[in-house]
Amino acid sequence: MLIFTCALMKTINAEIICTGSELLSGKLNLYVPLFHERLEPLGARIVREQSCGDGLDEIADCLAGALRRSHLVIACGGLGPTFDDLTRQAAAKVLGRRLVYSAEWERELRAAYGLSGRLPRNFSDQCLALEGARLLHNVNGTACGQVLTRGGRMLALLPGPRREWEPMFASGLEPEIKEFFRGAVPAARVKLRTAGLREPEAEALARPVMRRFPSLCFTILAGPGTADFIISGDDRRGLVRRAAAACRKAFGRSLYGEGDSTLASAVGDALRRAGSTLAGAESCTGGLVSQQLTEAAGSSDYFNGCAVTYSNAAKSSLLGVRKATLARHGAVSAECAAEMARGARRVYAADYAYSVTGVAGPGGGTPDKPVGTVWFGVAGPRGVRTMSRKFRGERANVRASAAAFVLDELRKAVK
Amino acid sequence: MLIFTCALMKTINAEIICTGSELLSGKLNLYVPLFHERLEPLGARIVREQSCGDGLDEIADCLAGALRRSHLVIACGGLGPTFDDLTRQAAAKVLGRRLVYSAEWERELRAAYGLSGRLPRNFSDQCLALEGARLLHNVNGTACGQVLTRGGRMLALLPGPRREWEPMFASGLEPEIKEFFRGAVPAARVKLRTAGLREPEAEALARPVMRRFPSLCFTILAGPGTADFIISGDDRRGLVRRAAAACRKAFGRSLYGEGDSTLASAVGDALRRAGSTLAGAESCTGGLVSQQLTEAAGSSDYFNGCAVTYSNAAKSSLLGVRKATLARHGAVSAECAAEMARGARRVYAADYAYSVTGVAGPGGGTPDKPVGTVWFGVAGPRGVRTMSRKFRGERANVRASAAAFVLDELRKAVK
Repeated sequence: MLIFTCALMKTINAEIICTGSELLSGKLNLYVPLFHERLEPLGARIVREQSCGDGLDEIADCLAGALRRSHLVIACGGLGPTFDDLTRQAAAKVLGRRLVYSAEWERELRAAYGLSGRLPRNFSDQCLALEGARLLHNVNGTACGQVLTRGGRMLALLPGPRREWEPMFASGLEPEIKEFFRGAVPAARVKLRTAGLREPEAEALARPVMRRFPSLCFTILAGPGTADFIISGDDRRGLVRRAAAACRKAFGRSLYGEGDSTLASAVGDALRRAGSTLAGAESCTGGLVSQQLTEAAGSSDYFNGCAVTYSNAAKSSLLGVRKATLARHGAVSAECAAEMARGARRVYAADYAYSVTGVAGPGGGTPDKPVGTVWFGVAGPRGVRTMSRKFRGERANVRASAAAFVLDELRKAVK
Repeated sequence: MLIFTCALMKTINAEIICTGSELLSGKLNLYVPLFHERLEPLGARIVREQSCGDGLDEIADCLAGALRRSHLVIACGGLGPTFDDLTRQAAAKVLGRRLVYSAEWERELRAAYGLSGRLPRNFSDQCLALEGARLLHNVNGTACGQVLTRGGRMLALLPGPRREWEPMFASGLEPEIKEFFRGAVPAARVKLRTAGLREPEAEALARPVMRRFPSLCFTILAGPGTADFIISGDDRRGLVRRAAAACRKAFGRSLYGEGDSTLASAVGDALRRAGSTLAGAESCTGGLVSQQLTEAAGSSDYFNGCAVTYSNAAKSSLLGVRKATLARHGAVSAECAAEMARGARRVYAADYAYSVTGVAGPGGGTPDKPVGTVWFGVAGPRGVRTMSRKFRGERANVRASAAAFVLDELRKAVK
């Protein structure tokens, strides 16, 4: 959910056109968030996105509309060598320009692929460029990107695969945008990451700040157990910086990091600072917390490992949970969570250990312990603490919420 | 990547309009794949998708274009009670219809929320409907959906949150579409899931089938270690069924499942059939395989657990990997993988066990064992087998590819 208190700054209106039937038949569209990240610091705001199939007329229709509405139009995909790669042709039709053979690109392809003699058809087709376009070098493929400007507007054609367009954007398109739209005011952006707050709670804490800075944009993106708070806008008078400082204060201990940091990386940072090690014991999360902790390179410096003990027998044999505890209190209990955490700390010889044991659902719930009930343990040098929560939603949401909760507790516990 | 050999059938051309600035500033758009799944069986094909901000004119412009081009237009979002929820108003403007107060919806809201007396503003605003629209009941929110038909075309307005529109689609919109577009030929769809084949290999195996059935659509969606092959089209003459049978034969042992099954669920099915249990030992994947295995409800029936042993000390203390093995061969070796798998099988008292140990990167590579090198073990009643692979790409890709590989090996090993 987004809260746009305002967004009137000197921005470039940008549109993204994504071609390829796969985007309309099951494949996730990752272009928009990726372009958003890159365009915002240049002062460009995406105002519309269109996805269409591979047909010439469809692509041309998307291009024509976008070029009528917006300053910057980026079309992705359809630059390959096969019959259904028609973005170049569509752009030529809309702009009334010819496609001309680029000797420059032929030279680059020959050099990159060591080609001599007659150029194979799938290479020579790649040398067709819009008349008057500047070429963008492709370090990971045969399609060159193209940029064309006309009457205050810019059209860029980029290849579809991320490993091709991403380096091309950084080295070729970004400088073109900066040069052509010199008057644009780059937006500054701060992403504050919180845990343990619901979306309305985060909004309530930030509301006074939002009122104080009506010219900035505030966005909340909520996930299971976390909420990201994004502040962006014209920073020439330090507004974004000041609003971020005020929000940091408002969020207090709920703020676990900024930018690209994750709950798992925040736990890793705390462990590094403390010179401590961590181990885990997971039941209902099945290794999800451990997996998140090891996503970061270098996590072996502080993470010793985790015992996923799905069966009661494994809880006893690996972690030393007493059979009497399981019989008396069940696996989903404070007592079991405490023994799991203590056991993990001992067998992995770690300074800290966490445990998660609960009913992820959809089956397994009882009136006493309904689906969503999860017990947690955090063991450290000063003993073990247990907590419980009742999460809503489906199995995947219960597991993700439980993982976020225990990582947040760990982050606060490690000293 | 998509291979459209053809797609000429009697289809409904559908367009999706997604409103909300968050979709243009970082939030992933999940609407299109979800609608695709639901529309295809009704004979409707998505030909374009547009995302726009929350402005009245922007939404109206998207609606006007879509209604000019397509038979079925579905607009999502912007039906809430706040000032920036303007989809109703935009539709009224484009269609030249008034918004009228719906006493029917007021009754439903009063009943659902136990309201009597004067209706609060945020409820009464929700009762505005397009003149002549039929309302779609919302079981999880206050916004009603709306459907309107005119001149062979249908416009549907749905609320944005998935838990609101999803039940509304199934119970309200789907019957409307079926009734209004009676002539449409429902497309049949078969999704074959393969592992261990690269995209071009899957394509090469299927090419003869694709040639034999030129009227069908064939799509390949590749992920780390897996490739899904989707066959769809008019099945009135059993074409999709026959093409799917031929593809199953062509993919042979690489085919691990169909439809919604995953590699992990295929392993689970094999274990259930065999009445066997499984345990794991993971180093570089950090619990990723275990996490995937436990995504399925009921996985505790066959999965005992997994020891994530990131440190060498943990490999020895938990799994009994000999210190001499680690000293002589290192943790990334056939010998260590074998001892990890045997150890996991023993300590978890399972019939089968897998192990994964490798260099996920970006650091830790050596000339001997470069980043991406991973050793695997599969232990079972007949002993232990080890294998190694060298995966390309970043840390996340190496880990995901390694997880897919070992699950595929397990699926084949369990008898």
